[in-house]
Amino acid sequence: MEKITLPKGFLASGISCEIKEGSKKKDFGIIFSKVPGDVVGVFTKNKVKAAPVIITMERIKSKKAQVIVANSGNANACTGKKGIEDALLISKEVSKILNVPKDYILLTSTGVIGKFLPIEKILPKISLAIENLGEEGGMDFQTAIMTTDTKPKFKSVSFFVEDKEIIITGIAKGSGMIHPNLATMLVFILTDANISSTLLEEALKDSLDDSFHMISVDRDTSTNDTVLLLANGMAENPKILNKDENYEKFRSSLKEVCIHLAKEIAGDGEGATKLIEVKVINAPDKNTAKILARSVISSNLVKSAIYGEDANWGRIMCALGYADCDFDPSKVDIYIGDILVAKDGVGISFDEERAKKILSQKEVYITVDLKDGEYSATSWGCDLTEEYVKINAKYRT
Amino acid sequence: MEKITLPKGFLASGISCEIKEGSKKKDFGIIFSKVPGDVVGVFTKNKVKAAPVIITMERIKSKKAQVIVANSGNANACTGKKGIEDALLISKEVSKILNVPKDYILLTSTGVIGKFLPIEKILPKISLAIENLGEEGGMDFQTAIMTTDTKPKFKSVSFFVEDKEIIITGIAKGSGMIHPNLATMLVFILTDANISSTLLEEALKDSLDDSFHMISVDRDTSTNDTVLLLANGMAENPKILNKDENYEKFRSSLKEVCIHLAKEIAGDGEGATKLIEVKVINAPDKNTAKILARSVISSNLVKSAIYGEDANWGRIMCALGYADCDFDPSKVDIYIGDILVAKDGVGISFDEERAKKILSQKEVYITVDLKDGEYSATSWGCDLTEEYVKINAKYRT
Repeated sequence: MEKITLPKGFLASGISCEIKEGSKKKDFGIIFSKVPGDVVGVFTKNKVKAAPVIITMERIKSKKAQVIVANSGNANACTGKKGIEDALLISKEVSKILNVPKDYILLTSTGVIGKFLPIEKILPKISLAIENLGEEGGMDFQTAIMTTDTKPKFKSVSFFVEDKEIIITGIAKGSGMIHPNLATMLVFILTDANISSTLLEEALKDSLDDSFHMISVDRDTSTNDTVLLLANGMAENPKILNKDENYEKFRSSLKEVCIHLAKEIAGDGEGATKLIEVKVINAPDKNTAKILARSVISSNLVKSAIYGEDANWGRIMCALGYADCDFDPSKVDIYIGDILVAKDGVGISFDEERAKKILSQKEVYITVDLKDGEYSATSWGCDLTEEYVKINAKYRT
Repeated sequence: MEKITLPKGFLASGISCEIKEGSKKKDFGIIFSKVPGDVVGVFTKNKVKAAPVIITMERIKSKKAQVIVANSGNANACTGKKGIEDALLISKEVSKILNVPKDYILLTSTGVIGKFLPIEKILPKISLAIENLGEEGGMDFQTAIMTTDTKPKFKSVSFFVEDKEIIITGIAKGSGMIHPNLATMLVFILTDANISSTLLEEALKDSLDDSFHMISVDRDTSTNDTVLLLANGMAENPKILNKDENYEKFRSSLKEVCIHLAKEIAGDGEGATKLIEVKVINAPDKNTAKILARSVISSNLVKSAIYGEDANWGRIMCALGYADCDFDPSKVDIYIGDILVAKDGVGISFDEERAKKILSQKEVYITVDLKDGEYSATSWGCDLTEEYVKINAKYRT
């Protein structure tokens, strides 16, 4: 199994608490930074927020954190007062054993909604999770947060500020319920960079707009989505305080990590057989490009046509047409791979056999040329398959 | 086979033109009123509009019509200038044979997007379609407009104004791409009522808000959706000019027809095994009730859970939470059938076996009680099944 490189000063672990009845899979993980770091986070926009999200959103206001606790198998959402109490019990136990103020402990959960956490199984195992913390524990942590994910999703990028190497490592889970503005997606980005908390926040926002906000699996936005970026400064680089060349390195590396993870999540959508990339080019403005790219990637009909390897570009036109923005349909050119299939909004004859071959690949690229400006945007998603339905018809049981 | 009762003065027919290569299924139909009538229409909001929609939207401005022409097998959408020319050729031929001004002829199409109509097959058959026009031709017309529909969808309601019987008959098709604000849905409502054109328009708008705007199959809004209401006055009732008791009879009968057809369309969603009805009650205002009811009925995850007969109410909470309106999640009660499964936003223990039994029925009723007002709204949809994916993976070929 591959190894996850953690930035300096970070330890991780993952163990099984049998949170999901009868499952021995790792389902409880901890990330620990040897020193408190600066943290920024982005959370679900769903009005129904899970207990750990409510707690973490409150704690993150201090902009300082040292520990991330995550579990799969149970979302601790729609669990009311008891849900909050259960989450606080976990936090209290972690705080006691690690000797870290509880406000520095951030909580995340993913899994079924509406069931109470089996707290009696989790509490006695926390000491084991803490004992197991290590520099090599990234993959255990990764395993512990996976639900219907079929593969681990992580990415490390490094760069130098003067002679100090800085590492940015992202670890993510997410498969069903992925949609622009987040989904049951947990993303933990760790870095040893020494950077001002304002710039940290700005870099994250910038990266999210072009990555996690541009993916869609099924348009359902979850109760638990969380993206956390924790910087502990242990690379000991001269602090990044301005938007200089070093900030630019940090920002572009962070974006690389985010786009990598976003594509991994999109391509691993529940039941997916293909990653779909939709590029809208030559748009009059950035926002139009984004809205159109997201509309196409979100269409069930486009997604099932691509699953069927059917070059049904009419559904792409249709999805553009109902997007909430203005554009001129009579200027639109559509490419499937490198094949022009529609010109000026009208179908043209093309090599159907070659189109079918392009659609049979593991990655399918669609380009929509608006011929009306110079802005572009890219979105990622997956095909819609019978397997998606099977997985989601029986997920709870 | 059942019979469709047409209102006085209406004739219909349906024949095969083999529009879809190799298919002998009826695919071309005409409705003819012996006298010109008042007409109102509602069309797709998609910016990519099919050629017949563009023509019909223009013609309907005169508020008079006498003929409706419909075909399945080809949407005549994304077909540019040639698409318009083809549609006009059909209209010209119908106009010539029936001796009706072309502006009184309304055109509709449904089927695959982006292919030119096989006009050379259609034009020679128009005289046959016209010869076949008859009072008994409703079902032939119905058959001609069906695509992936598995059953005909029609409804007649009658009532009296003084001693004159008035009939309202709706004939509809629609199965994939059904979503609030219309979808590949063609709805033709015929009536012999004598009613002012202003009231006709108002009654249609009112009926749509509670029927076709409250259904969802797959969130894709098509290029071809059309609802036409044609009133020829041949019942010879004293003209309905005011919002009196007679208007009320007309309005409520029209709404009955629309809700019946909307439910038929929702329940016959592509691959569906169940009709789902979501009722949001005790909302602070009508709009909140509607937005929430539509959000739940549109969730892929809710739809697949119901297909799997899994009482996964957490997904209902989740879909409420990401709807674009304000409400208090901690007040929400959720019922599946008559079983309370969540109270004040939190799960309660319930009889899972009985819930499973309720979910195994052909019609599933979900009630969301906001306990925060007195408004309510109902939406309809269907479950999401492997069959939906199968149908849509291969639709074009």
